[in-house]
Amino acid sequence: MPLRLAVLLSGSGRTLQNLVERLRDRGLPVSVELVVSSRARAYGLERARRLGIDTAVLRRKDKPEVASYSRALIELLESRKIDLALMAGFLTVWQIPETWQGRVMNIHPSLLPAFGGPGMYGERVHRAALDRGVKVSGCTVHFADNLLDGGPIILQKTVPVLAEDTVESLAGRVFESECVAYPEAVELFAHNRLRLVGHKVHVAREDGQEDDGT
Amino acid sequence: MPLRLAVLLSGSGRTLQNLVERLRDRGLPVSVELVVSSRARAYGLERARRLGIDTAVLRRKDKPEVASYSRALIELLESRKIDLALMAGFLTVWQIPETWQGRVMNIHPSLLPAFGGPGMYGERVHRAALDRGVKVSGCTVHFADNLLDGGPIILQKTVPVLAEDTVESLAGRVFESECVAYPEAVELFAHNRLRLVGHKVHVAREDGQEDDGT
Repeated sequence: MPLRLAVLLSGSGRTLQNLVERLRDRGLPVSVELVVSSRARAYGLERARRLGIDTAVLRRKDKPEVASYSRALIELLESRKIDLALMAGFLTVWQIPETWQGRVMNIHPSLLPAFGGPGMYGERVHRAALDRGVKVSGCTVHFADNLLDGGPIILQKTVPVLAEDTVESLAGRVFESECVAYPEAVELFAHNRLRLVGHKVHVAREDGQEDDGT
Repeated sequence: MPLRLAVLLSGSGRTLQNLVERLRDRGLPVSVELVVSSRARAYGLERARRLGIDTAVLRRKDKPEVASYSRALIELLESRKIDLALMAGFLTVWQIPETWQGRVMNIHPSLLPAFGGPGMYGERVHRAALDRGVKVSGCTVHFADNLLDGGPIILQKTVPVLAEDTVESLAGRVFESECVAYPEAVELFAHNRLRLVGHKVHVAREDGQEDDGT
């Protein structure tokens, strides 16, 4: 039985497209069963339809309270027997219940804990990195918990920051690293190699030993 | 004329030893002229003597005020015509005057801005990185300014964090990266390739173009 995935998004679905292609290329026993959007007109819904994936819209304004929104989302995921939910530009606050800890992933375009937290999304992350003058950035795949950008880290990929970088060029380079990192994290999950130990993720080696996640 | 270096330390001088060896191995036109210790009994003084380097002790308790301590230190550096001062475990607060901005380097055992700032020194840095569960750490060479761990970044080196890491094993791996990064930063300075632009360091390529510092 393939692992059943849902992708949660609010925007263009660029990460969705990448995930579907790379997961297919890797020949993994996974299937994206559902795309949930918090916006009715997100282009990601159109992409999902073209990819033949079922879609659902769960608008915030229909469920303004975090608790009721979260309950509705979890019910949707459970009704479709989703094993793993992947946040991919899902710009809505929701609460992940205890039973779903370690089953919701998110990706952030920096090396957390640097350039994470409130207000740190999209271009702002790269602007902050350039303003600080760091020479290395990258991306972080983590399990989502109820702390913004605070969840247990699954893996991180680094990219150089170049002297001539703009927000756009750095964002592009980091996005390329995300395109590798997110499918890799899903692969580790699919192969049952991720262990949530307290607030940390241990990555088991293929031989059963523990490995780093870089 | 070789570039005249001073190394500022408070402890064992492990970084001093490494710097002297690696700078010599690289055949750079630099010379460590002086070691300044804030502690009279720092083992780094003994190492300096064995390496044939002049030493000076500038104890905090003799100059308890930041301003007078800083003035004495700068006078010492200027009396020896030092071009570049390298902080290497110098555990004393001092203030760098405007004329010395861009002429004092420091190294920190993490990828700043992660795990920097008050209280983040020595083993505490690696403990914090392990507690957060990051999968990548490293070191940062930066120009020291009067913000703790806030100075303009010259270069950063990354190392993986392994599941089985202890504070000791991670500290050892990061130290290896420091042993490469610090001499590299000195080499960039010696070759006049570092440009301080506002709060950022631009690294000129050998051909005069700008390069990344990784």
